[in-house]
Amino acid sequence: MGAESDKGDGDAAAVPTDSDLGIEGRVMHCVVGGAHAFILRISSFFGLAPLRFESRSNGFSVGLSNAMCIYSYILVTILVICTVFGLVAEINVGVELSVRMSSRMSQFVSTCDVLVVVITAGAGVYGAPKRMRNMLKFMESVASVDNSIGAHYSLVTERKLCAILLAILIFFSVLIADDFCFYALQAKKVDRQWDVVTNYIGFYLLWYVVMILELQFAFTALSVRARFQAVNDALSLTARHISVPVEKIKDPTPLNIFAIRVAAESRRCANNVSLLVDTMPGKEHAVIIRNTVSKEPKLVVPPCEAIRRLACLHGALCNVVHRIDNSYGLPLIVILISTLLHLIVTPYFLIMEIIVSTHRIHFLVLQFLWCATHIIRMFVVVEPCHYTITEGKRTEELVCRLMTSTPSTGMLPSRLELFSRQLMLQSVSYSPMGMCTLDRPLVASVLGAVTTYLVILIQFQRYDA
Amino acid sequence: MGAESDKGDGDAAAVPTDSDLGIEGRVMHCVVGGAHAFILRISSFFGLAPLRFESRSNGFSVGLSNAMCIYSYILVTILVICTVFGLVAEINVGVELSVRMSSRMSQFVSTCDVLVVVITAGAGVYGAPKRMRNMLKFMESVASVDNSIGAHYSLVTERKLCAILLAILIFFSVLIADDFCFYALQAKKVDRQWDVVTNYIGFYLLWYVVMILELQFAFTALSVRARFQAVNDALSLTARHISVPVEKIKDPTPLNIFAIRVAAESRRCANNVSLLVDTMPGKEHAVIIRNTVSKEPKLVVPPCEAIRRLACLHGALCNVVHRIDNSYGLPLIVILISTLLHLIVTPYFLIMEIIVSTHRIHFLVLQFLWCATHIIRMFVVVEPCHYTITEGKRTEELVCRLMTSTPSTGMLPSRLELFSRQLMLQSVSYSPMGMCTLDRPLVASVLGAVTTYLVILIQFQRYDA
Amino acid sequence: MGAESDKGDGDAAAVPTDSDLGIEGRVMHCVVGGAHAFILRISSFFGLAPLRFESRSNGFSVGLSNAMCIYSYILVTILVICTVFGLVAEINVGVELSVRMSSRMSQFVSTCDVLVVVITAGAGVYGAPKRMRNMLKFMESVASVDNSIGAHYSLVTERKLCAILLAILIFFSVLIADDFCFYALQAKKVDRQWDVVTNYIGFYLLWYVVMILELQFAFTALSVRARFQAVNDALSLTARHISVPVEKIKDPTPLNIFAIRVAAESRRCANNVSLLVDTMPGKEHAVIIRNTVSKEPKLVVPPCEAIRRLACLHGALCNVVHRIDNSYGLPLIVILISTLLHLIVTPYFLIMEIIVSTHRIHFLVLQFLWCATHIIRMFVVVEPCHYTITEGKRTEELVCRLMTSTPSTGMLPSRLELFSRQLMLQSVSYSPMGMCTLDRPLVASVLGAVTTYLVILIQFQRYDA
Amino acid sequence: MGAESDKGDGDAAAVPTDSDLGIEGRVMHCVVGGAHAFILRISSFFGLAPLRFESRSNGFSVGLSNAMCIYSYILVTILVICTVFGLVAEINVGVELSVRMSSRMSQFVSTCDVLVVVITAGAGVYGAPKRMRNMLKFMESVASVDNSIGAHYSLVTERKLCAILLAILIFFSVLIADDFCFYALQAKKVDRQWDVVTNYIGFYLLWYVVMILELQFAFTALSVRARFQAVNDALSLTARHISVPVEKIKDPTPLNIFAIRVAAESRRCANNVSLLVDTMPGKEHAVIIRNTVSKEPKLVVPPCEAIRRLACLHGALCNVVHRIDNSYGLPLIVILISTLLHLIVTPYFLIMEIIVSTHRIHFLVLQFLWCATHIIRMFVVVEPCHYTITEGKRTEELVCRLMTSTPSTGMLPSRLELFSRQLMLQSVSYSPMGMCTLDRPLVASVLGAVTTYLVILIQFQRYDA
Repeated sequence: MGAESDKGDGDAAAVPTDSDLGIEGRVMHCVVGGAHAFILRISSFFGLAPLRFESRSNGFSVGLSNAMCIYSYILVTILVICTVFGLVAEINVGVELSVRMSSRMSQFVSTCDVLVVVITAGAGVYGAPKRMRNMLKFMESVASVDNSIGAHYSLVTERKLCAILLAILIFFSVLIADDFCFYALQAKKVDRQWDVVTNYIGFYLLWYVVMILELQFAFTALSVRARFQAVNDALSLTARHISVPVEKIKDPTPLNIFAIRVAAESRRCANNVSLLVDTMPGKEHAVIIRNTVSKEPKLVVPPCEAIRRLACLHGALCNVVHRIDNSYGLPLIVILISTLLHLIVTPYFLIMEIIVSTHRIHFLVLQFLWCATHIIRMFVVVEPCHYTITEGKRTEELVCRLMTSTPSTGMLPSRLELFSRQLMLQSVSYSPMGMCTLDRPLVASVLGAVTTYLVILIQFQRYDA
Repeated sequence: MGAESDKGDGDAAAVPTDSDLGIEGRVMHCVVGGAHAFILRISSFFGLAPLRFESRSNGFSVGLSNAMCIYSYILVTILVICTVFGLVAEINVGVELSVRMSSRMSQFVSTCDVLVVVITAGAGVYGAPKRMRNMLKFMESVASVDNSIGAHYSLVTERKLCAILLAILIFFSVLIADDFCFYALQAKKVDRQWDVVTNYIGFYLLWYVVMILELQFAFTALSVRARFQAVNDALSLTARHISVPVEKIKDPTPLNIFAIRVAAESRRCANNVSLLVDTMPGKEHAVIIRNTVSKEPKLVVPPCEAIRRLACLHGALCNVVHRIDNSYGLPLIVILISTLLHLIVTPYFLIMEIIVSTHRIHFLVLQFLWCATHIIRMFVVVEPCHYTITEGKRTEELVCRLMTSTPSTGMLPSRLELFSRQLMLQSVSYSPMGMCTLDRPLVASVLGAVTTYLVILIQFQRYDA
Repeated sequence: MGAESDKGDGDAAAVPTDSDLGIEGRVMHCVVGGAHAFILRISSFFGLAPLRFESRSNGFSVGLSNAMCIYSYILVTILVICTVFGLVAEINVGVELSVRMSSRMSQFVSTCDVLVVVITAGAGVYGAPKRMRNMLKFMESVASVDNSIGAHYSLVTERKLCAILLAILIFFSVLIADDFCFYALQAKKVDRQWDVVTNYIGFYLLWYVVMILELQFAFTALSVRARFQAVNDALSLTARHISVPVEKIKDPTPLNIFAIRVAAESRRCANNVSLLVDTMPGKEHAVIIRNTVSKEPKLVVPPCEAIRRLACLHGALCNVVHRIDNSYGLPLIVILISTLLHLIVTPYFLIMEIIVSTHRIHFLVLQFLWCATHIIRMFVVVEPCHYTITEGKRTEELVCRLMTSTPSTGMLPSRLELFSRQLMLQSVSYSPMGMCTLDRPLVASVLGAVTTYLVILIQFQRYDA
Repeated sequence: MGAESDKGDGDAAAVPTDSDLGIEGRVMHCVVGGAHAFILRISSFFGLAPLRFESRSNGFSVGLSNAMCIYSYILVTILVICTVFGLVAEINVGVELSVRMSSRMSQFVSTCDVLVVVITAGAGVYGAPKRMRNMLKFMESVASVDNSIGAHYSLVTERKLCAILLAILIFFSVLIADDFCFYALQAKKVDRQWDVVTNYIGFYLLWYVVMILELQFAFTALSVRARFQAVNDALSLTARHISVPVEKIKDPTPLNIFAIRVAAESRRCANNVSLLVDTMPGKEHAVIIRNTVSKEPKLVVPPCEAIRRLACLHGALCNVVHRIDNSYGLPLIVILISTLLHLIVTPYFLIMEIIVSTHRIHFLVLQFLWCATHIIRMFVVVEPCHYTITEGKRTEELVCRLMTSTPSTGMLPSRLELFSRQLMLQSVSYSPMGMCTLDRPLVASVLGAVTTYLVILIQFQRYDA
């Protein structure tokens, strides 16, 4: 499995992979803990992370598992078949009896809705093994960053994150259950409740898969962003270390590392085997920052060398961003399109329900919650990317300030010049399949399009009919 | 209060703040005068600037005041509650009696309108203490710029600005009063004039808060822009000072400083206590330009050193721009959205009134004035940002010309190279919450969208109904 | 008049002007010939170029003329008053008798149409003196470029250009006349032909003013673009001169200079009086390229010096582009908006006429010609800007190739580095008032918007009514 | 013909051409083989490649042929005349009898459809001689790249490509035939089948010309992209060669060269005659990489020199991209516009057919296939450009990594700095006529516009009529 690890690389995988040295027999393992283990466990259950978990003293050692891959494929195939058959059955019932498809147009809309969910879940699960293999690779890259800059591990942040994750999942579960009940109750009037249950159960379970996929991406992006933040903190520590005290650093402990707890084993392995990160051999990833007894981080190399190593780490992290982009490209695009379509259709029904009120409070609340869910889904995908971009800008700002403030002698200016040129050439942003950049302006344009559309629609609607 | 000054910093606050040295006991004060004192006073009255004003010989010494914070919160809470209750009362009256909500759709539109104003005012007032704390910080940064480049103080410009401010406010007051009267008169026909007064009084007062908030932002942005202008003037003075007289500078006195008059006390404090600006310690902000007796500004350091210090000042001002962005992010986004919605709805009613004339001249004039007001509101927000961007481009142009003209020996070329690289990495622009860039193309796209929408709407309208 | 030359500079005029040295008594003059004289003459007749023309041996010496300013203002004021009164008269006639306003909506559309033309012409003529003053300034800047790089003068190109100009003007005159006749004939049926003539004569004359204004801008932009081209040619000549013959230059004679023939007098003045261009004093604008007897251009300075001077000239030309932007900002924006509106309305009538054919061949042809005219108008404005941008990209490409090919010793690499950094900071593009960039993507988005709109409109139109 | 080779260069052809040295008598020849010969043969048959093919041992030697030019012109002229006469005949039949134009509006839509195809094919064929001349030029440039970096030739990739080509063409042929039959069958009902055949035969053949034109562009772009890829591979080989082994290169053999097999003759000619590529004389294009016996590529020059040469090759390839842009500009723009219009109209008919089902399964399938075809057409044009952009980004990434990793002594850093500056100034992207950039965001915005339009249309459609 490790041996064929770079066969599956797609066309767009511009980053060269590693198959030259003796790593054929290499089994990729990683020790994860806390929130990261939690999300991987849930993903694993829904077929989105075909991993083997082995309990260790400091977390779980994870590695790709063939058995889990087969489980994932079988699971999603069954669900997809169920959903499609359910859809066909529901269409064949006809517009008079169906609870969701009371006209030919709503049949069409509903079919689109189901197909979008099926495609997203399919893209998510069938691509999961490749995605996990990529993840195991760049997690070592991330681990080497942690190693170099003396990362902290905060249990509190870990728990907060788990809580947010659980909150979103529970909210979504309640919504799905409520939606399910609503239509089952509707169907009861025509005595078709069991048909509806069997026809839609696959659809609702696939919705879960989609949701978990989004959370998994958000989580991965957030953990990479935490490393960018750590590099920035190290940069401002370096700045303070130089005679010109340009920077006052915030206390770095509470937030710099909250995602992946890399255990000693993983670090040792990173030293023995040839590095996966395409930067420097062993000695380069030597420690830049070490935490003193008084919890104060301290620079252990001269500033000039620190800048050079931080530039390398920054480059490696940019590379990780590219890999995540490649891994999650297709699912993200499908998710964005489905969110756009849902954001057009759902608020329309909500507003029409408000204006042409027919006292269906339950339906009103349901539509409102779906609206909220779709907006949350969009933010779950976009916000981690936005934070990453913000960190990228902070790096630029810090390098700028270092440039203006350092004396013009010695190696430091030329190192900073190199860093600044590197920042000009490499941008820190996620752009799934090169289709668009995931950032807040994207949200603005989506919301703008939806608003314009709704205003036109509401203005033109004939209320007499 | 000073001690907990960096707790409230949001997630996006990439700029590290100052809590390491002994500035816990520090009480932030600033001496303001003229137009700046005027706008702060008005803001203070409407709860948007919870400051304590102490009269000094050269203006007012301002500092954050707990009492004013409480006053602000109570004021806005009461107004919001009034408005919401008024809205509910008006909806409950029914479509037959209400003067503003003659159909279910206009009920919906009106509710949106009121809620947008409530949210903007709320975002403005509840975030005011944090915003003022930020303002006090970057005002010292601004003061150090003034100090370095020998800023002038022009009473005439100050008075002009006050006059423009007053003109906008009076125009807006007249409009609000007229609008109020119009609906009160309408309501009189069904004998509900007092209901309307009590139901809408809160709404109209919140409109004031929104307007003041926009003016406050415009004012802040303009005063920062004046500093960029001053740095540019100093840059072209430096250019003239170098043997190659590349630049003919305009007389800098009348317009470079018109917003904040920083008194001696503030400057002394800037020297004693550790600097808030994260650039250079004391000696760096030594004077670059001093005004001679003949009112002619004169360079007091060698050109190479001047360039280095101006680059530092430019970086510090970019930092100030970022801080203003962070402070006003949410209110600005809400204001932009509300302006867009109003610019879609108001001209529609205006044009329909013109085409399907029903001889309601008062209503026509009122709608026209509202249109004008919303366009003015957009320009009040965007124009100061546009001017800032223009100054940023002027800096680039000046540095370019200095690069091409200076001899290729000595330190000057490398200093200019640093400056040029700094300009490439750091952009001078406002982008609230990273959603969009506040500039003229934004205005163009908003007006384009509104125009297209109106053309479609007017084309499709059925005039027989 | 020369003495108060820099009073009128607007707020956005970032480029410092010249009032320090003894140029108060300076009378700005320029010798123009050929196509440039032709367009200025026509502009002058329509009030868009208030200049005094004095015949010289090699063309006309032009200078600002107070008499012509007064003539322009009176002319346009009368035309505007005529137009507005005509419009009011036509509206008062009522929808039954009016030939252009057969419904309230067409009254509204027609009023907008007339007002847009009035505003454009007004902005053009009232701003003409300031614009001409600017033009006289940057023409000297342009003349110094011609001087430095041994510009050629091609009579053939000159004549071609005059022919194109005349063709456009004649086409437009025929269209205007035809349109006028069409409506006069229509009006004859209700015996109002003389009313129509008096009501619309001002409107049609203002259309001329607008058209000439566009041609004037196009002409100015084209002549600046010719200088960029000449700088590029000089750059590739320099490249060929260096031992590495990277470039094969096209024969530069036929197209590099076709707009402004600057006479010796102007050049002498440029040497005597302080330069208006803010680049180098006298000796800098010494000749870079001189034409040998065999018509072959030849470098007269070493390559390194040539690169430096060409960078200066490039900077000066960028500056000229900025000044043209400032001069034509407002009229260009109004022209763009009016073109957009016309491109939405005119094809709609054309297509409706085709589909719902009522055998009005004359009207059909007229609408088609108007469509063509509006598209030509857009291209007249955008194409010169596009060509300028293309030249800017060619400069970048040439500098790139020089960088990769030159040996890494001597001064040349550092000069080229400076040039490349200058190109990164300064962009060659027109953006009137900072609203948008005048380039082909703008055309694409305008045509895209118009197409979408027309498709929606045609799809939804009810053909039964 | 060779002598007048640079007369036809359009205005936008910023790249200087070669007419100075003794290349008047030069006959351009190229040896092509495999897939490239295949596409050129097909193009030649449809008039899109007026070339003379001479069979050689290693492929075909191609050169511009006057006879083929005349054949092309006659062919396309006849087809266009046939199509236009057919269209007019079909319109004159009237809305009752015509099978495609059952209303005045569908007459209008159908006319637009036919005209768009006619214009595209015309632009393709009439511009073919100039395009082929350009192609022969930049193929030598491409050949020199192959020469320098020891390119491989893979028969498997070649065959795969031919298969994909054939598959697309067969799919399209089947579709066209089916469409033709469908309307012929429809016409049979009114006994007009032979009229339809004669009226539409030209139209369907022109569709072929359009399709081949797109494939020809895609093929050309892909072959240039393969060279970018090869340069990148050479770059990472260089990186590995430097003591810091930053890169692990993928096995370069299978995919780097698949389009043009340049024979020895062509290479010799490239050494004898003055180079067409405007980079370095003979010795510069000496070999950088040579393949050892063990199929392992090996650097034969020092790394520093390799970087310099690779930068030159990269610049030459950017130049090739510009030339392709100029050659295919107009046809590409027409193709994009026609695709947009088709993507708006076709899915509309498809969806209306699904919702308002009238049991015309054949029509349904046909519409679906047309939809698929238009989407494939868009991707055929955009994807090769996207891959090229991706390779450009990979170059930036590799240069970045080299910069951070190399020691700061020696010539290497300055060479890399030059390369990085070159990458900042020159972008690798196709933008036909400067109208838009051919990349995935363009696809996203087209699909977004189509989706919005369809949603509005379906929402508003009255299903009762």
